[in-house]
Amino acid sequence: MKKGIAASRGYAIGHVIIKEDVDITITDAKVENVESEKNRLDKALEISKNQIEKVKEKALKNMGEDKAAVFESHIMLLEDPEFIGAIEMEITNNNTNAEKAVKDISDSFLAIFESMEDEYMRERAADVKDVSNRILLNLLGKMSGIEITENNTILVAHDLTPSDTAQLDKEKVIAFLTNIGGRTSHSAIMARTLEIPAIVGMNDITSSVKNGDLLIVDGIEGNVIVNPDDETIKLYERKVEEYKEEVEGLKRLIEVKTCTKSGKRIDVAGNIGKSEDVHKVIENGADGIGLFRTEFLYMDRDNLPTEEEQFESYKYVLEKMEGKPVVIRTLDIGGDKKLSYLPLPEEMNPFLGYRAIRLCLDRIDIFKVQLRALLRASVFGNLKVMFPMIASLDEFLKAKAVVDECKAELKSEGKEYSEEIEWGIMVEIPAAAVCADELAKYVDFFSIGTNDLIQYTLAADRMSEKVSYLYNPMHPAVLSLIKMTIDGAHNHGKWCGMCGEMAGDETAIPTLVSYGLDEFSMSASSILRAKQIIINQD
Amino acid sequence: MKKGIAASRGYAIGHVIIKEDVDITITDAKVENVESEKNRLDKALEISKNQIEKVKEKALKNMGEDKAAVFESHIMLLEDPEFIGAIEMEITNNNTNAEKAVKDISDSFLAIFESMEDEYMRERAADVKDVSNRILLNLLGKMSGIEITENNTILVAHDLTPSDTAQLDKEKVIAFLTNIGGRTSHSAIMARTLEIPAIVGMNDITSSVKNGDLLIVDGIEGNVIVNPDDETIKLYERKVEEYKEEVEGLKRLIEVKTCTKSGKRIDVAGNIGKSEDVHKVIENGADGIGLFRTEFLYMDRDNLPTEEEQFESYKYVLEKMEGKPVVIRTLDIGGDKKLSYLPLPEEMNPFLGYRAIRLCLDRIDIFKVQLRALLRASVFGNLKVMFPMIASLDEFLKAKAVVDECKAELKSEGKEYSEEIEWGIMVEIPAAAVCADELAKYVDFFSIGTNDLIQYTLAADRMSEKVSYLYNPMHPAVLSLIKMTIDGAHNHGKWCGMCGEMAGDETAIPTLVSYGLDEFSMSASSILRAKQIIINQD
Repeated sequence: MKKGIAASRGYAIGHVIIKEDVDITITDAKVENVESEKNRLDKALEISKNQIEKVKEKALKNMGEDKAAVFESHIMLLEDPEFIGAIEMEITNNNTNAEKAVKDISDSFLAIFESMEDEYMRERAADVKDVSNRILLNLLGKMSGIEITENNTILVAHDLTPSDTAQLDKEKVIAFLTNIGGRTSHSAIMARTLEIPAIVGMNDITSSVKNGDLLIVDGIEGNVIVNPDDETIKLYERKVEEYKEEVEGLKRLIEVKTCTKSGKRIDVAGNIGKSEDVHKVIENGADGIGLFRTEFLYMDRDNLPTEEEQFESYKYVLEKMEGKPVVIRTLDIGGDKKLSYLPLPEEMNPFLGYRAIRLCLDRIDIFKVQLRALLRASVFGNLKVMFPMIASLDEFLKAKAVVDECKAELKSEGKEYSEEIEWGIMVEIPAAAVCADELAKYVDFFSIGTNDLIQYTLAADRMSEKVSYLYNPMHPAVLSLIKMTIDGAHNHGKWCGMCGEMAGDETAIPTLVSYGLDEFSMSASSILRAKQIIINQD
Repeated sequence: MKKGIAASRGYAIGHVIIKEDVDITITDAKVENVESEKNRLDKALEISKNQIEKVKEKALKNMGEDKAAVFESHIMLLEDPEFIGAIEMEITNNNTNAEKAVKDISDSFLAIFESMEDEYMRERAADVKDVSNRILLNLLGKMSGIEITENNTILVAHDLTPSDTAQLDKEKVIAFLTNIGGRTSHSAIMARTLEIPAIVGMNDITSSVKNGDLLIVDGIEGNVIVNPDDETIKLYERKVEEYKEEVEGLKRLIEVKTCTKSGKRIDVAGNIGKSEDVHKVIENGADGIGLFRTEFLYMDRDNLPTEEEQFESYKYVLEKMEGKPVVIRTLDIGGDKKLSYLPLPEEMNPFLGYRAIRLCLDRIDIFKVQLRALLRASVFGNLKVMFPMIASLDEFLKAKAVVDECKAELKSEGKEYSEEIEWGIMVEIPAAAVCADELAKYVDFFSIGTNDLIQYTLAADRMSEKVSYLYNPMHPAVLSLIKMTIDGAHNHGKWCGMCGEMAGDETAIPTLVSYGLDEFSMSASSILRAKQIIINQD
């Protein structure tokens, strides 16, 4: 048996097809004719663009509009003057050959994205890798891609790019296994979207199985059994059936309002990053949106989004949710999340630095555009707004003062907004949790951001390999701060939610229910299972 | 009136002498004869060494043995194969002229030290700057230094190097003012050592006064009055007298054991970085050493210190303290503190990374050498040992298990150690404060490290200019965690001290006394004043 990181639930029994890595050899050779080298690059870019258009069409069929949109950003990257310009400059200035120029420039782009903890940012790293790889293959005249014709295929690869996963035919590929990656790596996220079992981080799976091997994939435990005996196959055939029934069974929860056995009503909501993600959340029977990260509106562009653009995006989500609560978090940029058009100071410890509300209160010009858009959108649904990285009451009051300013402006312009908006804060800094009882007097709600709260409480960056063992959601100090936050809210008649990964963690949900957490917000694919667990609590 | 950052207490009335910066112009010019350029460098190094020897003699007279030791490390830097080797390599490989090679290499060394928050590390940055500047002046055949012949001189400079301050004649220079620097910059630290008033960070003081101007320096408020009228002069002459009396008055507290009005005995102890610092602490009437940072033993060398070297150092301090408590902190390296001979992983957020006890528990080989040295030294005084960066009980228990291993080894080797050693932890991570009541069952004492505790609790790096406003020792969450820690200790009959900067902060001491803090540990120069404040509390 081989073990890896369980990345997507489910069981599969099928035969191996190994995706071979294409050999990309790059030399240091200098070129003399810079212009003809740039022509080679242009041609490769052109071919790449045509290929991506086709991949996009396939993705639309296989995975829906929201995931296909990724390939729009691939095309944008092919046309990005910063990215392509840097490659051309490298050729012109240093007589570098096109392959090496593409590799060097994309490596420096990659270094930025790969060090980030945010799920969306890491997807972007996968995008850059995917696009640059495609350009390289086209420069070298090589082909990539996997044509799978057999049913019940278990795809085995070193890693899978967004292009690879977009082209996976779910009718034929029933699971995949990769050497590298973690639970939040791109391929893991895609497997959950496709709803096929997957195990990542297997180290050497490409060399330890061969084409045609029969495999059992246990995407729950993260186990792979190679060429199992008949008895084991039978055991897992039963598991496959039971799992299918379980998944079907969960679907009846789509319309169910979640209550504990003792009758406490609990909201199970979804986290989204882009407005299109709202559909997936609705399909999974969410009671609302518990976290709309608005950073994506600010990315993949070379200037700040206008009030109108933001307004349209918020309105879209509010309308689609038809009166269900939508919690929108104001801009949380800075730290590990950078924007090309908004230069930020270099910091030694970006997680302890200039970001989120700190940046917004310093750059009221940027903040006001978003607040005005939010206020205007509020008449189209049930809007709640929260401010990220609040460390003291003072910051919340300052933010509210800016809101009042925006309201006054809109009023004088004759523009509508709702007076029913709730204004809350993310509790993700230990100080906010410790002072929850005081803060609760002023805010309308709390939403606990466990990813950051855990990092700060334990002083452990979970992306730092050497200390990630300390990152433990069930550490007594973390639990204690969560309890303090919920109690603080309730003491003043306010509600408390949670939008970090812990909210969707099956082992944590019972404890959180016992603490009285009012709302759980998580990725769409975890909602039904969370509902099931909550229903079984006292 | 001009304002700056009050860096050293006291008043002074005197006349300006401006220290002009010597113009150091460096060109990009390439050299052809690499060997002769290296000869130039060698000569400059030789001259520099002779000069430093003389500065060292002066420092011995002016500031005592411990401060003169700095110039030992200057000489070591001149002979450091890593530093000088890199400069020579730059000349050889790139035909760089010696001046530019010195500048570039020292800049890259500086970049590392300057970003650090630790007071000692920042002193080292000043050292590198000082030495490289000296080499440059000698390469260019220029002279630096200030010859001051007038009494009652107020020295005004852009910045002062360690060499500058070591040569200051306290008989003549009664205060100094600089354009740059903060409360923890090298020049500020030196002013407090010399016990003359100083104001740093004045921005443009070198251009806003001229030689001979009469100035009043108020080192308490951070104010400078230029060419004051007679009435103001009279006012400040009175203040100078009163301040002198106050300082004399404090001296009677040297032998006094500190008690509050209600009779609670409180220990006022000193923080030290090197064993020689113990003298200054004793002179100021400390009840013990509350923090002996052991990092310095590991620096300025190219290999780990042996058990014997460490043993001698710990024994020295324990013996000098004659039975008074000495709290030694085990190695807190990593994060912003790096050792050239111990490569550590690059981390995005070093403050949330692999450091202190995390590193020691991972590198038991290094940890054991220190623990064995501590155990062996314990028979020479009243030793207490604490572990830094404890986030969970588990880590403390693991550390204690390593201690037991060392004890068993020593026993079998027939080497002595005391069974009376107390074993405690630094409370500097929010998790430890939150869990203090549980941890107190296992440890012998707590020492609160406020510098880090504040940073983590507020998720604000105090070295990051944009968010340092958030760094507030009196934030209700910080106070709440401090109270929790003290209460936790007392609930289980243990004592609780504090060794961060807050312990010496006059505005914080009354609150800390009211919380029941048992021990305050601070830099030697703050001890007497702290005693005075504590005596006046109920």
